[in-house]
Amino acid sequence: MTYVAPVKDMQFLLHQVMAVTGSDIPGYGDLDSGFTGAVLEEAGKLASDVLAPLNAVGDHEGCVLENGVVRTPSGFKAAFDQLRGGGWTALDCAPEFGGQGLPYLMHTVVNEALVSANMAFNMYQGLTHGAYSAVHIHGTDAQKATYLPKLATCEWTGTMNLTEPHCGTDLGLMRTKAEPQADGSYKVTGTKIFISAGDHDMAENIVHLVLAKAPGGGEGTRGISLFIVPKFLVRADGSLGGRNAVSVGKVEEKMGIHGNSTCVMNYDGAEGYLIGELHKGMRAMFTMMNEARLGVGLQGYAVAEAAYQNAVAYAKDRLQGRDITGAQNPTGPADPLIVHPDIRRSLMDQKSFVEGARALTYWGASLIDRSVRLGDQAAEGLITLLIPVIKGFQTDQGFAMAVQAQQVWGGHGYIEDNPASQFVRDARIAMIYEGANGVQALDLVGRKLGQDGGKHVLAFFEMVKKECQAHDGEARMAPFTTALKVASKQMQAAGLYFVQNGVKNPNAALAGSSDFLHLMGHVCMGLMWTRMAKAALTALDAGGDAAFLQAKLATGRYYMARQLPACGLHLARIESGAEPVMALDAAAF
Amino acid sequence: MTYVAPVKDMQFLLHQVMAVTGSDIPGYGDLDSGFTGAVLEEAGKLASDVLAPLNAVGDHEGCVLENGVVRTPSGFKAAFDQLRGGGWTALDCAPEFGGQGLPYLMHTVVNEALVSANMAFNMYQGLTHGAYSAVHIHGTDAQKATYLPKLATCEWTGTMNLTEPHCGTDLGLMRTKAEPQADGSYKVTGTKIFISAGDHDMAENIVHLVLAKAPGGGEGTRGISLFIVPKFLVRADGSLGGRNAVSVGKVEEKMGIHGNSTCVMNYDGAEGYLIGELHKGMRAMFTMMNEARLGVGLQGYAVAEAAYQNAVAYAKDRLQGRDITGAQNPTGPADPLIVHPDIRRSLMDQKSFVEGARALTYWGASLIDRSVRLGDQAAEGLITLLIPVIKGFQTDQGFAMAVQAQQVWGGHGYIEDNPASQFVRDARIAMIYEGANGVQALDLVGRKLGQDGGKHVLAFFEMVKKECQAHDGEARMAPFTTALKVASKQMQAAGLYFVQNGVKNPNAALAGSSDFLHLMGHVCMGLMWTRMAKAALTALDAGGDAAFLQAKLATGRYYMARQLPACGLHLARIESGAEPVMALDAAAF
Repeated sequence: MTYVAPVKDMQFLLHQVMAVTGSDIPGYGDLDSGFTGAVLEEAGKLASDVLAPLNAVGDHEGCVLENGVVRTPSGFKAAFDQLRGGGWTALDCAPEFGGQGLPYLMHTVVNEALVSANMAFNMYQGLTHGAYSAVHIHGTDAQKATYLPKLATCEWTGTMNLTEPHCGTDLGLMRTKAEPQADGSYKVTGTKIFISAGDHDMAENIVHLVLAKAPGGGEGTRGISLFIVPKFLVRADGSLGGRNAVSVGKVEEKMGIHGNSTCVMNYDGAEGYLIGELHKGMRAMFTMMNEARLGVGLQGYAVAEAAYQNAVAYAKDRLQGRDITGAQNPTGPADPLIVHPDIRRSLMDQKSFVEGARALTYWGASLIDRSVRLGDQAAEGLITLLIPVIKGFQTDQGFAMAVQAQQVWGGHGYIEDNPASQFVRDARIAMIYEGANGVQALDLVGRKLGQDGGKHVLAFFEMVKKECQAHDGEARMAPFTTALKVASKQMQAAGLYFVQNGVKNPNAALAGSSDFLHLMGHVCMGLMWTRMAKAALTALDAGGDAAFLQAKLATGRYYMARQLPACGLHLARIESGAEPVMALDAAAF
Repeated sequence: MTYVAPVKDMQFLLHQVMAVTGSDIPGYGDLDSGFTGAVLEEAGKLASDVLAPLNAVGDHEGCVLENGVVRTPSGFKAAFDQLRGGGWTALDCAPEFGGQGLPYLMHTVVNEALVSANMAFNMYQGLTHGAYSAVHIHGTDAQKATYLPKLATCEWTGTMNLTEPHCGTDLGLMRTKAEPQADGSYKVTGTKIFISAGDHDMAENIVHLVLAKAPGGGEGTRGISLFIVPKFLVRADGSLGGRNAVSVGKVEEKMGIHGNSTCVMNYDGAEGYLIGELHKGMRAMFTMMNEARLGVGLQGYAVAEAAYQNAVAYAKDRLQGRDITGAQNPTGPADPLIVHPDIRRSLMDQKSFVEGARALTYWGASLIDRSVRLGDQAAEGLITLLIPVIKGFQTDQGFAMAVQAQQVWGGHGYIEDNPASQFVRDARIAMIYEGANGVQALDLVGRKLGQDGGKHVLAFFEMVKKECQAHDGEARMAPFTTALKVASKQMQAAGLYFVQNGVKNPNAALAGSSDFLHLMGHVCMGLMWTRMAKAALTALDAGGDAAFLQAKLATGRYYMARQLPACGLHLARIESGAEPVMALDAAAF
């Protein structure tokens, strides 16, 4: 595969669109373009030179369970050492625990390059980052001192254990038990499935975060607590002791992300330590959910970016047919694929989605920074609203774009010698894990729209409206604001439909939930493209890089002209209500 | 996997919607419902009991090249013998060559069940059927006598050799050569790739149909001729002689259809025999194209049907969460997935697509029968127009529906122990082979719309309009005719846009080609659902099976309410023209 980190696009967002050094968020002022440029160039080099070459290796070799331990693909361990050695795993971790204290935004931008180059590989540190956050937010001082320095550097890696064979979304059905011991620890017993990075040979220890039911919590999700269960027990001095009673039952054969070991984990009275409050395990998981889901939304477009780059390379190289308006490569046997309008359409779909999603994701990361570093409640409310959209819309669309990229390759895209199939197979999981996209839609429509009396969604509606008004009368902005206005009204009409019909019949709202998620996703893209267009025009007027900025504007106009009208379709579906969806008895399927 | 042939739905189409026994097409009068029911029950049994259990086996084992011969997965040969033994490969072949002389429609309906159960397996006979047709249409009497009885029974199987490493769509670049020999035969030399069923261990001989350039034909596609190149030479008495100079270079590793051997074939001066006219090989291929592409369009929905059936089974079985309007399984730990509106939406998307596509495909097959058996020029023109829609729309949507079916399984859909991933991976190829869907869109907009002065597309427009008018004032038909009218006008507006803009700028038409293909696809679905609704109402009024017929009507109303509005989106994209699509220089990608 080919991969070059789109540093210019990343820098454009950080400095032209988001103007990070002028932000009031602590730490942003230090992110001048020289610094971020240097970091991104280095991250890009690591991604291109070390991670990307291992992407197909991971896919072909997969992970193998040997004598109870998972062996990762050739080269993964050396690359993981390099990732660790460069300090890439601890960019936004706290300096007191060995991190560099950079904003979460910088972690996000760097993470994009690593995910594009090798999604399966990067999951080992992604999960560890999640475990770091859990311990950082909920752990005792002793737990922090023991675990955080090791997790920040990925000397130890982390996992999240929620799903069981009979329950995923509905965690109230959970059977894994935690029995309190005299010494304050717990014995954890149960089977967890789909545990990413559940075991591997790249770290000294693995810190499993396990949801389990401790006595006295009551029925359903109320009885759930969160436990730290290390693979190797940790002695008081921090050194590693004996093997804990946790073992790998199986490594799953999956459609993709073969380089990541997805394990069935068996806990047989394993020693575990309560983290956070007893019986408040679900709440502890929720506090990490925004970051985790933003990270999956990032995977959606980051894999699409890699798929796009490879499709572009193929479309420029492969000679097939002639430009209908006249040969472009008259001395060659045929013109390159990229001359054909339908290939262009496909590449523009991909490009305009990826660039919009990148902007949305970076904005989302900055809202998390604003919420965490400034305690800004409005930012917290807004990002909580946007998270299901970022996760659900970007992974659905990212997958669809990876499929389009594969299509550019024709038959060669179906052959595993080429990279196109892997991007599709890898991208597919992001629609499923960390809350399947139907659950994201339910979260959005069933919970987030009405949260705090609907004030966050109303604030978002207002923000979109103001963005349109801000550029009123600017002819060059008209292709953006005109389309965004229409889409914005359609979004509001959908919201109104839910308000008017959802109370007396919840199914009238839920039947349209996936459509609303996509409608709002397109509006978010439209908002991002409007902001990017304004920034591009400003930079252009100031004598900026015309080729880059004009391409940015043309890509945005494409999105507004050809993708934003999808909002009308989604509204029509929403307004068709529950009846068509719920008309049949279950027996009629 | 679970699979039961939807015989009731098939019978409804044949007898209620198409009224086959009343048709003037020769052979249709014999297809009374007792006969078709018995055939379909038997085909369904073969599909469920023999083919479906081998679907995962084929996927997991794949095809292996051993000592120059491809070994198929365990059980394939025994199943192929059973397929042959039951006469299933020769349903519509000519009685004089061992076939049963049934209409192509019956072949199509039976084929659906076999493809749903095991697409990769069924390709061996599918390709053979194509080779049978080629020899039947273009062969000499001697060639027919030698090859047809063997191909009809699949004692010998067939292949189609078009693609070369450097050319797929653009066959004018072809390098494979055919040198004439003194005895009238040719020596064929070259490399062909992506040859489905290129070699295997299930037949005595393999009849390769190979496109190659013979001297004197000129440049490009004009120089191409079609040759029969048998794996084993055939003696004058029909017995098998020595091995021909054709060998398998490689079996490809693919994303799916692992049970089918996709081969690189090397021809090293292999003995070949001209079939059809010299230098008219492309024309010979074109005469088989309607059947071949209809067969791929069938794969699109047939695999989606299998994916749907398995998703339904999972959605009824898996307990997760509660119906928001009140528990449906109060004594159980949770309700089945199927109570949730977004799961319903997904299953209705799948069901309403599959049933519409089945109707379109059977209608298409009957148009081919009408054209071939009655020489009806209008039917020939209409099916030639519809073929890119049937192929492109149905395979794009079929894949999307298989993805939705996989999504119903949550994380379990990503694990290869379950059938969902295979359906997605298998379905993916149908969008690519037999002319990638972008090429179908180009064929539709660039060639078929204007064919014979546009008379076929105008006839289609008129047919849709008349279907709406025919049910004017029938309240129960209003949900169908109202939506179809709107979509029909949008289709005509798109056509008008092409007429007004495409001549001075062909890119203005081609930039909207994929959108037009999908717009017309939805109109075709709308037309089919309108016909099905009318037939269902008629049957209902006559006291037919109310549960089945009411479900049919509700499924159709779902499609009209929630899918037909996609036509407006496609029109908006088409009318945005070439500029957004073609704005960027190739260097800007």
